[in-house]
Amino acid sequence: MSVHAGAPAGAVAHAERAGGLVVTAERLRAQLEALFTAWTGPEHARASAQTLVEADLMGIDSHGITLVPLYEELVRSGKIARDPQVGVAHAFGAVATIDGGGGFGHAPSLQAMDLAVEKARAFGIGAVGVRHSNHFGAAGVYALRAAAEGMIGVVTSAVHLPSIVPVFGRVPRMGTNPIAFAAPGAEGAPFLLDIATSTIAIGKLKLAAREGRSLPEGWAVDRDGKPQNDPEAALRDRMMTPLGGSRAMGGHKGYGLAAMVEILSTLLPGASYAPLRDPDAAHYDVGHFCLALHPDAFREAGGFGRDLDAFVACLRETPPAEGCERVLAPGDPEHAMRAVRARDGIPVPRSLADAARAIAAERGVRFLLEDPAE
Amino acid sequence: MSVHAGAPAGAVAHAERAGGLVVTAERLRAQLEALFTAWTGPEHARASAQTLVEADLMGIDSHGITLVPLYEELVRSGKIARDPQVGVAHAFGAVATIDGGGGFGHAPSLQAMDLAVEKARAFGIGAVGVRHSNHFGAAGVYALRAAAEGMIGVVTSAVHLPSIVPVFGRVPRMGTNPIAFAAPGAEGAPFLLDIATSTIAIGKLKLAAREGRSLPEGWAVDRDGKPQNDPEAALRDRMMTPLGGSRAMGGHKGYGLAAMVEILSTLLPGASYAPLRDPDAAHYDVGHFCLALHPDAFREAGGFGRDLDAFVACLRETPPAEGCERVLAPGDPEHAMRAVRARDGIPVPRSLADAARAIAAERGVRFLLEDPAE
Repeated sequence: MSVHAGAPAGAVAHAERAGGLVVTAERLRAQLEALFTAWTGPEHARASAQTLVEADLMGIDSHGITLVPLYEELVRSGKIARDPQVGVAHAFGAVATIDGGGGFGHAPSLQAMDLAVEKARAFGIGAVGVRHSNHFGAAGVYALRAAAEGMIGVVTSAVHLPSIVPVFGRVPRMGTNPIAFAAPGAEGAPFLLDIATSTIAIGKLKLAAREGRSLPEGWAVDRDGKPQNDPEAALRDRMMTPLGGSRAMGGHKGYGLAAMVEILSTLLPGASYAPLRDPDAAHYDVGHFCLALHPDAFREAGGFGRDLDAFVACLRETPPAEGCERVLAPGDPEHAMRAVRARDGIPVPRSLADAARAIAAERGVRFLLEDPAE
Repeated sequence: MSVHAGAPAGAVAHAERAGGLVVTAERLRAQLEALFTAWTGPEHARASAQTLVEADLMGIDSHGITLVPLYEELVRSGKIARDPQVGVAHAFGAVATIDGGGGFGHAPSLQAMDLAVEKARAFGIGAVGVRHSNHFGAAGVYALRAAAEGMIGVVTSAVHLPSIVPVFGRVPRMGTNPIAFAAPGAEGAPFLLDIATSTIAIGKLKLAAREGRSLPEGWAVDRDGKPQNDPEAALRDRMMTPLGGSRAMGGHKGYGLAAMVEILSTLLPGASYAPLRDPDAAHYDVGHFCLALHPDAFREAGGFGRDLDAFVACLRETPPAEGCERVLAPGDPEHAMRAVRARDGIPVPRSLADAARAIAAERGVRFLLEDPAE
């Protein structure tokens, strides 16, 4: 039995079949804002909540409300600052570095992208790094923020714990180090790429474990650095291959891309590289990187958006492979899902709703997701 | 029987066994400069030659003298301008776009990176696109040029013909669209990543064909979009998978990265996207993108280089997988090879030397590689 809290009728039946909830974006935002306020104070709670809701709206379910148990764990570890002071630490010309004050990464990263966009308006390009930060949700949310301002947005982030194992190695050296890239069209939706530099997401390991399937070679490695086929062991060790997997399939490329992300996100703004971090440090000191490019500074005004629309249309019109329905442009699934969920609501699986309810109770936060009166 | 032209004794024996030549970098540069002068005039010939020699020195053999037959073919097609006029077409703040005048891409791309570095000194960051260009050799050469000036360098390029097939598709929509990234250390050699966004290089197809091996699933697709196992057919069709290969192995990520490269290299500076290009256009109008970031503008002076050295050392010290000798940092193979070839010379296979000799003869250019008197 499920409860429908503030979402239209369309998604209810499916959610009830699955035993979960369907909630409106606004309801979810209010719930998350209350949790973030309890975790690290009111100042940045809305920014954090909205970032997670945006991910859930786009179907990036790994970076929405599903993060609540991880965030509770991070706060409990004491490695996240309460009432963080966010501010500019360095500034020069078209670049800057923001200090996140040891809190969650959402607020300083939104500030970073907004500042990068402002600089791109003035100089054609702007880049702002973030240090002394933590998990910031879905990188694509920040890249799209630039695109909404008519800019190309590029966002990378490090992760507080390593999980990508270098090619030929048997110890992880980098997080799943995401890259997001968004570019604005003239008429159409923005191009959007938002990827981890690992071959697959942790979520796929969980799915394989649940379904009792062994892992294909090239997703994860064991403690000897050999292919890991056991999904339970892979989940425990979290030793993922870089994009490409084995050397023969280009794993050295994904390894290099993950390292590039670490350099831009950690080394450039002066954050801490996880394997060399002082274990007694007060905070994780994770880093991020935001870049904005103003297309009209490179060419005739308006030309870029028109060309982008034509490019994306050409990708979509690629003749499909035998047995495939059609070819998607990067960002198509996210835009389509956003339209559906803005209308029908966001599904929340039963186990996740229960976990969020328990955390809310412990934190003295009202649980809004199943409250029809709210 | 081979002839040794101007290279030290160390590499001679191996080259003679292989029936090829070993030449000094200086000799190779002179030969290439003479060829480029015959192809498109003297003004940019030295820049083009030096770019190819740098690739050969670093062991990026696919982008050195081996390009001579392709370049001859490009010039013959009439799609490359003779005596191209290279100049700044747009400039605003920290960004600009250079027009390559329809010639080879090396000279305008060197100018683009030099201008990006100059802007990064003034603004902390600089980005310069190139349009109306052509093949520019190895992207890593330009990225390293930024690193030699103490900057992080990022370089991407489109390609005049498509060869990467989107996931779920059966027609190529992008070239092998490379990404290069270099970052300067304080003491150590620069970090260097230089990769195509396809799973593998064309050279691996050639090797498989020569050895009569069938291709592993995920390298190439056939005209129905299904995995292509026949190396001869793969070479003929040139339909490569994006990095990751199949959807299950993350091919959608490589597809998105190739598209990102196309947007930065082609759409941003206003070059021509190959599938939509007017077939009657005088030139190919290929585009490139160069970005420079000044680390000292983001954080305390000198901190970045020290952190980079520590990061790269940590990657190298990763415990190796069972059966593997050691873990490499991106750039290690190129730096090691450069030291060897600067000392011992650059090997040129017999078939390539013969092809270059024939092209030189047709162009009325003296063949220097086997001339002991030179």
